[in-house]
Amino acid sequence: MNLEIKQSILLNNLNYAIKGISNKNIIPILNCIKFELTNEGLYMTSTDNEGAIKTFIPTSDIEKVNNLGEVVISGRYIYEIIRKLPNDIIKIEEVIDNQINISTSNSSFSLNCNNVNEFPELNLDDSKTPIHMMRSDFKNIIKQTSFAASTQENRPEFTGINFKINNNILECTTTDSYRLAKKTVKLNDYLSESINIIVPSKNLIELERMLDDSDELIEIHIFNNKIIFKFGNILMMSRLINGNYPDTNKLIPNEFESILTLNLADFYQAIDRASLLTSEFDKNTIKLNFEGSTINISSNIPEIGHVEETVSALTNNESKFKVAFSSKYMLDALKSFDCDTVNLNFNGEEKPILITNPENDDIIQLIVPVKTY
Amino acid sequence: MNLEIKQSILLNNLNYAIKGISNKNIIPILNCIKFELTNEGLYMTSTDNEGAIKTFIPTSDIEKVNNLGEVVISGRYIYEIIRKLPNDIIKIEEVIDNQINISTSNSSFSLNCNNVNEFPELNLDDSKTPIHMMRSDFKNIIKQTSFAASTQENRPEFTGINFKINNNILECTTTDSYRLAKKTVKLNDYLSESINIIVPSKNLIELERMLDDSDELIEIHIFNNKIIFKFGNILMMSRLINGNYPDTNKLIPNEFESILTLNLADFYQAIDRASLLTSEFDKNTIKLNFEGSTINISSNIPEIGHVEETVSALTNNESKFKVAFSSKYMLDALKSFDCDTVNLNFNGEEKPILITNPENDDIIQLIVPVKTY
Repeated sequence: MNLEIKQSILLNNLNYAIKGISNKNIIPILNCIKFELTNEGLYMTSTDNEGAIKTFIPTSDIEKVNNLGEVVISGRYIYEIIRKLPNDIIKIEEVIDNQINISTSNSSFSLNCNNVNEFPELNLDDSKTPIHMMRSDFKNIIKQTSFAASTQENRPEFTGINFKINNNILECTTTDSYRLAKKTVKLNDYLSESINIIVPSKNLIELERMLDDSDELIEIHIFNNKIIFKFGNILMMSRLINGNYPDTNKLIPNEFESILTLNLADFYQAIDRASLLTSEFDKNTIKLNFEGSTINISSNIPEIGHVEETVSALTNNESKFKVAFSSKYMLDALKSFDCDTVNLNFNGEEKPILITNPENDDIIQLIVPVKTY
Repeated sequence: MNLEIKQSILLNNLNYAIKGISNKNIIPILNCIKFELTNEGLYMTSTDNEGAIKTFIPTSDIEKVNNLGEVVISGRYIYEIIRKLPNDIIKIEEVIDNQINISTSNSSFSLNCNNVNEFPELNLDDSKTPIHMMRSDFKNIIKQTSFAASTQENRPEFTGINFKINNNILECTTTDSYRLAKKTVKLNDYLSESINIIVPSKNLIELERMLDDSDELIEIHIFNNKIIFKFGNILMMSRLINGNYPDTNKLIPNEFESILTLNLADFYQAIDRASLLTSEFDKNTIKLNFEGSTINISSNIPEIGHVEETVSALTNNESKFKVAFSSKYMLDALKSFDCDTVNLNFNGEEKPILITNPENDDIIQLIVPVKTY
């Protein structure tokens, strides 16, 4: 392999490729980036075996291609070296087997390489029927659901986002069994087969950070054991989580005893302040008391003090009631809405609270109350 | 105590007062802020016994003073509560002994207070002969010297910045015995007595962060066992470190075998890149080899690879020589200069390297070479 390339172009792509490497990995080859210089251009691939990232620089963006070939280089070192070189033309050259030289006019780095044959074989081909979506829409799906996935490994399926597709309806659901987030999206693509898969939420959170907030498309290729996302010259692969995701739709009620409509910002800030006097030990519990047209929110830590907040609300009937829940879960749920008012839907103090946008039912947030007696 | 005050004014001052509290403190009263409402205004004081911060809001900036008095409140809670309240008028009221109520139209917090008598007595009066300096100049002194102080507690005096004043000359020195930083400043104030004190560098780094980069003055009050800094309505006290600071001036040579003059940015970037192939285990050692008009910088980690960098330099004689030093220490030292070129002053490969600004001798950075044989 022997090429000359602009520092800024190479760094732009390495910024993605470096994210495929897990810092926790102790297998040396999984800390490496594979460089493949072909007639089409330069591919850079990294993998931690649970996922992979592959980026591509076309030949037209490369100053000089002197010799095709493949090398496998420590990701951390090549990334830091390219990052710290000036924005000049960089020459990268395999000088002898498994040793490359990276040079500009004043700098010359020699790096030992790993054996190309040890790098994992990855099949990153396209599926026959990819799904297309706006990148900004896909970012929103992840932001509005991933927080409610579990971080506990004892139920691996709960650590992922469940993607269900029937015809052109995509339902994305997460739950840790104390709360649930669900986003429904209408696709432009019709799939002949229905889909029901679980994608690790940590990989999707990483993808969300890499995606630009644009109207450009992301392509989604779904397989039996993996999912591939393509955007621009970047490809990201994630393994799927084995297991059956519970049918969560039966957990979501359709009828409610009481519906409160309130200002999202006022309610968020009141819960945020009340959460100051809650403790993790006590599940961050706060109490909500509704009467007339006023919500009273209270919490306390006995040795520190207590807080009372009031927020005005509209209601569909004149009932009065009380309920207790985790302030942390409520704040997480409220953050997923981008509207002025939200509905709180209740069926008594032991039944799940549903939070919805009164004008649009594409997001549902559900929180299981805390029993305080 | 009973007052009404704008949230933004109170928060501005709490932003300073909260910095006097150490997160590591297990003595409850040292996690508190003392509020004293007097006829002049509201004083807020925090201390971790090694230092203290006191801020002041004059009565003219307070909406209503209903009742004078003193309370001692958990710093973390009062700070977070005020931070999260809207920018309205906040009412703070001692309702019964050792309990306060903090309220706006929709929020009401009750907090238990600590006993006022348990808060440490602090004498924060002025000295007779304070020193005055521009805040931006004082920030520079700390930035240009504090990094070279030791973080090891086995020689406590090396963890501080040594302030020596004779007539109107202030010399500020730090050393960890492997490197030394010295800044000399001409004061506008003449002191009749000479001063030689050691101020904990961690307190000065905290002060540096609090100071605005302005032409306004900072007042410095020096006592036997403490130092007090005053700027605006803020007062910061720091205890002094006991012990005699070594006479470092005799360690700084005046004559040199070779002086190299080179571009600061080029040299910094070359060292920064070469440092990528050094290891802490090996004291981040890099080698510098000078011959003709070129500096060659090299380093290596055997299992990873090696790097060579070249930088052009002017010299006062035609000698060639080599020397090895810590790249980390060199980068730290170079960061203290705000000029286009620096001089590297050498006396052979075992003698300290001095780094200076050719046009101004107010900063001296000294690095002890690493022996590589």
